[in-house]
Order: sequence, then C-alpha cells, then structure tokens
Amino acid sequence: MTVPFYDVDAMEIAWHGNYVKFFEVARCKLLDQLRVNYFQMRDCGYGWPIVDIQLKYIRPAVFNQRINVHVKIEEWELRLKLRYVITDVETGEVLTKGYTVQVAIDINTREMCYATPEIFRQRIGATAE
Amino acid sequence: MTVPFYDVDAMEIAWHGNYVKFFEVARCKLLDQLRVNYFQMRDCGYGWPIVDIQLKYIRPAVFNQRINVHVKIEEWELRLKLRYVITDVETGEVLTKGYTVQVAIDINTREMCYATPEIFRQRIGATAE
Amino acid sequence: MTVPFYDVDAMEIAWHGNYVKFFEVARCKLLDQLRVNYFQMRDCGYGWPIVDIQLKYIRPAVFNQRINVHVKIEEWELRLKLRYVITDVETGEVLTKGYTVQVAIDINTREMCYATPEIFRQRIGATAE
Amino acid sequence: MTVPFYDVDAMEIAWHGNYVKFFEVARCKLLDQLRVNYFQMRDCGYGWPIVDIQLKYIRPAVFNQRINVHVKIEEWELRLKLRYVITDVETGEVLTKGYTVQVAIDINTREMCYATPEIFRQRIGATAE
Repeated sequence: MTVPFYDVDAMEIAWHGNYVKFFEVARCKLLDQLRVNYFQMRDCGYGWPIVDIQLKYIRPAVFNQRINVHVKIEEWELRLKLRYVITDVETGEVLTKGYTVQVAIDINTREMCYATPEIFRQRIGATAE
Repeated sequence: MTVPFYDVDAMEIAWHGNYVKFFEVARCKLLDQLRVNYFQMRDCGYGWPIVDIQLKYIRPAVFNQRINVHVKIEEWELRLKLRYVITDVETGEVLTKGYTVQVAIDINTREMCYATPEIFRQRIGATAE
Repeated sequence: MTVPFYDVDAMEIAWHGNYVKFFEVARCKLLDQLRVNYFQMRDCGYGWPIVDIQLKYIRPAVFNQRINVHVKIEEWELRLKLRYVITDVETGEVLTKGYTVQVAIDINTREMCYATPEIFRQRIGATAE
Repeated sequence: MTVPFYDVDAMEIAWHGNYVKFFEVARCKLLDQLRVNYFQMRDCGYGWPIVDIQLKYIRPAVFNQRINVHVKIEEWELRLKLRYVITDVETGEVLTKGYTVQVAIDINTREMCYATPEIFRQRIGATAE
C-alpha cells in the first residue's frame, strides 16, 4: 500500500485514525483467502463486528510512503483475534503494531455467539493445519 | 460547525473532499426538518442517492475555524437540487459553494423514479408555501 | 454529537474506525479548555502525537443517534493519557470505551520528550487543582 | 482498485463522497508520472489546490467491486483540468464521471498564479508531445 494524500494530517504524517483503515484492508484480504469474508459470513447468518482494537504508533508514516501490513491469526476458536504489524517496504522498520478482536453475532437477533461459527472453524481450521 | 483536526490535510487546510461531508450534515438537517430524511424515505420505499455534486473552493478553511453551511432548495419536483454556501462565522466570507442533485429510486428494484415521490412533494410543498 | 450518515457502514452502524474521530472531537475540546491545544503546543515548539489508542465496542451506534463523549485525564506528568466513554444521550447506555496516550515531541527534531513540557504541566496542573 | 468496506454506506454502496478519494489516487499517480506531484511542486515553491470538482454518479459501486479510474488531461496551460471516468473492471460499465480543476498558488503568499508554473509546463509539455 501507499499512504494516500487524503490520509495525511497537518503534521504531514498519516492521521492516527487512518491506520484502522490500513488494518481493515489487510484483514479483508485475509478473510477473503480463508473464505470467511463479510458476504460469506452474512450468507451464513452471521455478522462479524470488531469489539476491541488497539494501535501502538512507533514511527509515523508519511505521504506516498510504501508500507506493508502484516496480519496473522492469534485466536480463532471463541473469537477472532488478529495481530498486525505495519512496516516500511524499503527499510523494514516497524511503524505501527496492533490487534483487533471480532466476535460472531446472529445477524437477525444481533446477539453475540459464544464461539466462532462452525462454518468459520472448519474453513479456518482447514487452512491452519 | 468547527473544522475538526482529522479533516485537515498537509497544507493545514480542510482536505477538499471533506466539504462533501459538511454539505451532508447541512442536507440531513434540512431533510429532517422537511420530514423526508433517509429513514422516512426508506419507510416509504424510496432511496435517495446523490447523482451529481459540484464544489467550488473560493477560500480554504483551516483547523478549528468556525463555519456555517447554508443550504437552500433550488428544484424539488422532478429531482431535488440543493445549493450550498459555506461561510466563515466571524467574517461572513464565502469559502465554498456548490450543489447536489438527488433522485428518488425504488428501494427494491433500484430503478430511478421520473419524479420525486408524492409523499415528498406533499411535505416539501407544504413547507415551501 | 449526532452520528452522521457518512460514518455509518453497510451494517447500518457507525464504522468502528470512526469512533477515533469522536474521541478526537472530545479531546480537542478538552485541550482547548486547558489551553494546550494543537496550535498552542506548536507555538511552544511541541508536537503532540497519539502513540497508543484502544477502543472497546460494547453496543453499536446507529445513524442519527445522539451520543455523548466523556473524556477525563488519567495521567499527565510524563505523558498524557485520556479515558473516554461514549454513551447514548437518551438512555445513558455505554456504547464505547477507550483511551489514548500522547507524548510530547520536539517539533524540529521530532524526538520524543521524556516528560510533558513545563508549559503543559503548569496549565494542566492549574486546572487539576 | 477495490472498493474497501470502510467506504461503503448504509445502502451497501460506496458513499458518494468517497469517489473524491478514488479520483485523488488516480490524480496522484498521473502527477507522479509527470514529475509534478505534491512534493515536486512544493519544492518549486508552489501549492496545487483543487478549486473546482464535479462528480456525476451513473451506477453505484459496491463493496469489494474492482474498479478502474481513468484520468486524462483536458487543460494545462492556465490551470490543470483533469477528466475522470470510473468503470467496472469486469464489464467496463461506466460508474462515475467527473473533473477536477487545480490552480497553482505561491506557497508563501498563498496567492493564485495566473498560469501554471514554467516548470510544470515544461514537464507536462514534454510528456504531451
């Protein structure tokens, strides 16, 4: 990814809230690969909201900087916890770290599920082995 | 309204795309007053998308600047065309001008209606008189 | 504050990244009151970046919902840590909780300061007493 | 480009204001190629703000849809006017059309220049031939 102009603030660095978007782009790609993306979850009757997010900013990213967003699965049985590291493409320096936690909800009742849905565990389990 | 920090770009002025949001805040208030807002239109079976927007930037708005967004109805029978002027609260100087055009669509078929819905014309007509 | 349409996602709730903006609006107001806002810090030679942020989502906020953002100071001598609680205006229900951590940096060297600047401690100390 | 989740609104389509960002990504790439991007203009003492933008929405873009943003130069001697067409990658259907107008300003005085800067005309002229 390249940091776009519209994500840069008056300090000429990416505004801190925009890293939430960088995380989301990486997360959506991962969930696409695992075949548990937004549409696939919804078609199975599930929503998939973020319930917890943390970001630690180590170095700022500037306009036009090329960045990598690495994402890996930390927990997936009861809830989905993903870890993120954003690095500079050239130097490999770590810019930002963080995690997100998602839980499954029933899309009609909006009630929280006590574990990730069966379909999700099958698909992610198959990939994890 | 006050220009928030997250809407300011590397030039220390509000990023040009964010005025679309300032327009939207004023438009939603107007549609609330006319009782034809997003929810009221949807409950009547209509969507209300923007199909045309133009913005002219005369002077930049800076972080923390107090601005007014004036909006008025220009056309409403076949489609809804609104005119906007953004001014500085203190000096009254014009910062931005523009318009939006919205058309009604059937929310199920997503097909465009050839005129604004009856319910809309009644409510807006009542107010206009 | 009222949740604007442009902050709502396909689930018809405020997109989780937008709460970072709600936090910022409340934070800027607080820093204005304490006379240590972005401009006042910059004029004293300091930047004031966020280095750590966490958000926990308890209930979703929907379009047009009226919300309050409560913010209070938790630490301010070495770094500025603020706690946030977002509630529904009508019911008082807690929607979101979180914190931000900011550190002072020298605006020219971009190096981190080991404590909050003297000017900051005076102003915030005066208010805290 | 792929339409990201955070750019989608409650109608499950890209919120109309976000196309301003899609235009900007394409514009920045073009200006990079022409060697007249934000940094190169600034180093020559010029700002390069948008003073006029129009967008016409023909068909909505949905989450995860693959889109192309085509951009071409319409005027460049007195001001820079760019035309944009956004199409669906698969079908080639036109989704959005629009233009932007930019003028050069002196970065110190913030006064408008009556023509595009010499450096700009050289570089863009060289490419246009």
